[in-house]
Amino acid sequence: MAIYSATVTSPVNIAVIKYWGKRDPSLILPTNSSLSVTLSQDHLSTRTTIACSADFKSDRLWLNGVEEDIQASKRLVNSIGTARALRAAEEAKNPELPRLSQYKIHVCSENNFPTAAGLASSASGYAALVSALGELFKLPQSTAELSRVARVGSGSACRSMFGGFVAWRMGEKDNGEDSMAQQVAERAHWPELQALILVVSDKKKAVSSTAGMQTTVETSALFAERVRSVVPARMEAMEKAIQERDFAEFAKITMQDSNQFHAVCLDTYPPIAYMNDTSHAVTRIIHAYNAAKGYTAAAYTFDAGPNAVIYAPKSEMRDLVELFAYLFPRDEDVLAEVFYTNPFSLVNAEEVGQTISDPAVRKLAETVGKFQAGAVRRLIHTEVGDGPRVLDQSETLLTESGMPKHARE
Amino acid sequence: MAIYSATVTSPVNIAVIKYWGKRDPSLILPTNSSLSVTLSQDHLSTRTTIACSADFKSDRLWLNGVEEDIQASKRLVNSIGTARALRAAEEAKNPELPRLSQYKIHVCSENNFPTAAGLASSASGYAALVSALGELFKLPQSTAELSRVARVGSGSACRSMFGGFVAWRMGEKDNGEDSMAQQVAERAHWPELQALILVVSDKKKAVSSTAGMQTTVETSALFAERVRSVVPARMEAMEKAIQERDFAEFAKITMQDSNQFHAVCLDTYPPIAYMNDTSHAVTRIIHAYNAAKGYTAAAYTFDAGPNAVIYAPKSEMRDLVELFAYLFPRDEDVLAEVFYTNPFSLVNAEEVGQTISDPAVRKLAETVGKFQAGAVRRLIHTEVGDGPRVLDQSETLLTESGMPKHARE
Repeated sequence: MAIYSATVTSPVNIAVIKYWGKRDPSLILPTNSSLSVTLSQDHLSTRTTIACSADFKSDRLWLNGVEEDIQASKRLVNSIGTARALRAAEEAKNPELPRLSQYKIHVCSENNFPTAAGLASSASGYAALVSALGELFKLPQSTAELSRVARVGSGSACRSMFGGFVAWRMGEKDNGEDSMAQQVAERAHWPELQALILVVSDKKKAVSSTAGMQTTVETSALFAERVRSVVPARMEAMEKAIQERDFAEFAKITMQDSNQFHAVCLDTYPPIAYMNDTSHAVTRIIHAYNAAKGYTAAAYTFDAGPNAVIYAPKSEMRDLVELFAYLFPRDEDVLAEVFYTNPFSLVNAEEVGQTISDPAVRKLAETVGKFQAGAVRRLIHTEVGDGPRVLDQSETLLTESGMPKHARE
Repeated sequence: MAIYSATVTSPVNIAVIKYWGKRDPSLILPTNSSLSVTLSQDHLSTRTTIACSADFKSDRLWLNGVEEDIQASKRLVNSIGTARALRAAEEAKNPELPRLSQYKIHVCSENNFPTAAGLASSASGYAALVSALGELFKLPQSTAELSRVARVGSGSACRSMFGGFVAWRMGEKDNGEDSMAQQVAERAHWPELQALILVVSDKKKAVSSTAGMQTTVETSALFAERVRSVVPARMEAMEKAIQERDFAEFAKITMQDSNQFHAVCLDTYPPIAYMNDTSHAVTRIIHAYNAAKGYTAAAYTFDAGPNAVIYAPKSEMRDLVELFAYLFPRDEDVLAEVFYTNPFSLVNAEEVGQTISDPAVRKLAETVGKFQAGAVRRLIHTEVGDGPRVLDQSETLLTESGMPKHARE
């Protein structure tokens, strides 16, 4: 059986200027530009292998070992169709190329983090899909051009096509050809920046971001003002802060834009509340932490759920890990090595949360007081990362016959 | 000892178009007009006796039986000073009037609801103060004119000078003379409207509304848009809804404006979150209740704290009381007769929360599921009420020598 295949990994990104609202829902054209930080694939990534063969009978998809109906997602069909059309154009120009655009494909995709963590996996997932298709089809398009294909799958996925600091330029054209990602600065530009994700326990069913953002566009009286006046100025100020590695400015805009995103969610009718009491407590703790330090030492941001992402310089991370592990004690049902993996060997992972080294931080912790165990399920400590990586054949997720190596019932 | 005295009660009001932000903090001139419903004094009111005498040595104040420093509050000093100036003007016109404006006063004030309930008592308190001063001094000013004096004490107090449905017209003048309350409709216009207050348990220290609103004015990028574009249209639509007793429209604007108030609080920097998980659960329950009924049957609104106020026609109240008492079980430390007083003899108060009469409401309750006992401390069921009442001498809170009858250590 002649099989062509490619395997890639792609990163998660967490926006500091939020994407919320589409001006064209089918092409996924946003109402405003956005900007994100790509996180390290060592801790959070999606690995995808795509194979194609004249012998495959149909397009098939396995997510984390379980087969899914590939036709059920119009967005997936669109992304794959777009990549095939790009390949077909190349085949038309060069008759010697194998007719891969006409072959059925098998897609196998796995996250290296639990889906239950509630971290948006659609961005890393679609970036991996499109990167693997680009590699498989040997597409000549630039990464920015391919980011348009990822965008059609999931808007924020276009930003996961690059490492470092990435803007999604909203564009102006109706056909979306100018709505794509652009790298603002690479990872190496600001290597001190790290991130601590607090996976927050939540019982209620969340409103999907796809449905939620369009309800906001239609019903929030304040949303248009955000799009018109607020975001353009913030994009400019944020890019400057990143260029100058000005953490205080980066932090302030990040926190303000997270707050405003959740504000327009509340101004939606019916209102959408993604943050919960634990999330709001984290915002108060970060403002108190900055006050205790006497400078802007950390910033929070929240996506469409209760999890907090804390951005801070590496030099703050020991204090932050110790503080949050103390304030939000590990639930007994969570293993210590899962609660905090200590990837940078900063603290004693066995004892994390029992002691706080810095006296000012200790005093703050005692003032705030401990929360109920389990309110935070995990602390994921990571850093700024690179863009999608092409892996070699030894890293494939598919067997030689194009079936998943790690299938689950 | 010659003593002059007057005793009044004044009501609480709950805004449906929110006051948040001052354009002049010392005169308490608001950034936007607002509109509220006055609640019945049978369930929530402040009673105030003010006496004056040539024999009193100093101005004194007792709140709920405890003496407070009357000079400590600039606002209190301002309100009393303004009323004295109005009296002095009358005395200047009529030499036969006793010189009450020169006498020291004793103020004694009690709420008929626990302060711990977290219900704003400054509105009923300042309305009672100013009404009692107006009565004591026999001031010829109209209620609307006196509402300016109440406004100087606490902005929203001006709306408690009237019963029924009350607008606070923001005015345009710098001296505040056109910033006062106006009755939009009297209580009798819409007697079916009732209210159910859910007193929500909360552990965190709240940001004071005085400090919070000015931080919003200074830091929220969306606040100006609310003031400029949103509130004026909502004031007009709300007044029309009230005139037409259009509950669906009244409810929609009430909920949207509560949501937007909390949205601009979140857009404040640092952000302010007054609603907690229980509050947000109440909003979801009301939207689900309206969906289950198939029409707009109830509306929520939240002030600067987690307590919910539910407005609904009287015909919905039995279902709502049964629903909320079921979903938010009484904590054991709260007496049954305190948890729900059943003022309208609607349900079996002993068994409230154990059964739900309406099958559709019962189904909804089972879908939502019970919350932890004690998340809601009390259900206060009340209705639209009248304005300040002048009581006769038998209802005084002061003895014949001008000291509190019910002093506490």
